[in-house]
Amino acid sequence: MKTINLLVGGPTDLWPDSLRQGKIDGDWIGVDRGNVWLVQMGIKPLISIGDFDSMDQSEFEIISNNVSDIRTYNPDKYYTDTQLALKIASDELKADVINIFSATGGRIDHFISNYLLATEPKFRDIVEKIRIIDKQNVIQYFTPGEHEITKIDMMHYLAFIPMNAMHLSIHDAVYKLDNYYVERPFAYSSNQFDGDKCHFDFDDGVLCVIQSKDA
Amino acid sequence: MKTINLLVGGPTDLWPDSLRQGKIDGDWIGVDRGNVWLVQMGIKPLISIGDFDSMDQSEFEIISNNVSDIRTYNPDKYYTDTQLALKIASDELKADVINIFSATGGRIDHFISNYLLATEPKFRDIVEKIRIIDKQNVIQYFTPGEHEITKIDMMHYLAFIPMNAMHLSIHDAVYKLDNYYVERPFAYSSNQFDGDKCHFDFDDGVLCVIQSKDA
Repeated sequence: MKTINLLVGGPTDLWPDSLRQGKIDGDWIGVDRGNVWLVQMGIKPLISIGDFDSMDQSEFEIISNNVSDIRTYNPDKYYTDTQLALKIASDELKADVINIFSATGGRIDHFISNYLLATEPKFRDIVEKIRIIDKQNVIQYFTPGEHEITKIDMMHYLAFIPMNAMHLSIHDAVYKLDNYYVERPFAYSSNQFDGDKCHFDFDDGVLCVIQSKDA
Repeated sequence: MKTINLLVGGPTDLWPDSLRQGKIDGDWIGVDRGNVWLVQMGIKPLISIGDFDSMDQSEFEIISNNVSDIRTYNPDKYYTDTQLALKIASDELKADVINIFSATGGRIDHFISNYLLATEPKFRDIVEKIRIIDKQNVIQYFTPGEHEITKIDMMHYLAFIPMNAMHLSIHDAVYKLDNYYVERPFAYSSNQFDGDKCHFDFDDGVLCVIQSKDA
């Protein structure tokens, strides 16, 4: 399993402790200001992506002195810089798992943009690789079929969020569903594992699953 | 214009300064722990809603000593406590504007649940009254037709997020759209007002509009 981590330019206050302590496995791609933070933590990203316009000269020097592969990129209507980083992690670096950090909190339009990535056809093949992570939440996405997920340590709650109409079954959690027809995007929150594993299946589109904990 | 404010039980760290300083106009409904914070700020909510199970005796006493209308409510499959507060603000208190505070940050399943409220048919008649507010974001919802919005002081960015397929026109912002067919929920972020007002129209479902600022 090859893991690539993305550190994007959102707020730093929702980072999980493991990120702050430098305990995340895998290589890194930095996006915009994420690159500065990575280098300051002693992590050299494999690739730095960004338009770098919002940085001052000293910040850009931190990056250019520490990263051999810098890709200056102006966001266009086809890909945002986070989307480009995802594409590189998957197509070029052949990642099996892509963790995205610093993508929550702050501007909600940015978060919703990242949250909805998984519904875009151009990312359909890689949605199961994506995890958006902060200190209270791990967000994953699934495509139709049968799935098994494992409880993440300390994460107490389990939410199922159909991103579209679908028939959904949740086989083994505190609240179960049996081939239930969900008409539109909806958040089934505050479910819980009743063991270490949960099995579920659905028939269309994308299902978002969030494991979370209280503060 | 009658404004009713809801303080729900989410994180307090994303409150706008105006809330912390007690400068929000209108009466209040408290939901769960939001009631404790209101009383501690010297605000007596008109109505307190919650299951109050997660509170200790001293917290509940703070509420019962200060609020005459306490409605103990166990969330059911039809309404969450926040949804019930919305319904009371609209149906019973006849609010024209319903501001929701403390509904962002923390558990993302809770936020998505609040964010998707506007797509539920049972709330379709009141979605234009709802605003979800934190220190960097004001989220509003609109139903089909022509609309005018006014720039909120200090809010630099303007995002349009169709919650479903629709034809969308943005008449006067930095990035315009002319009867553009949007196939699925998508976040058009980082647009900006080019004056004090922005006019837009669309033909189906619900459109989310977010005014936001950087930290």
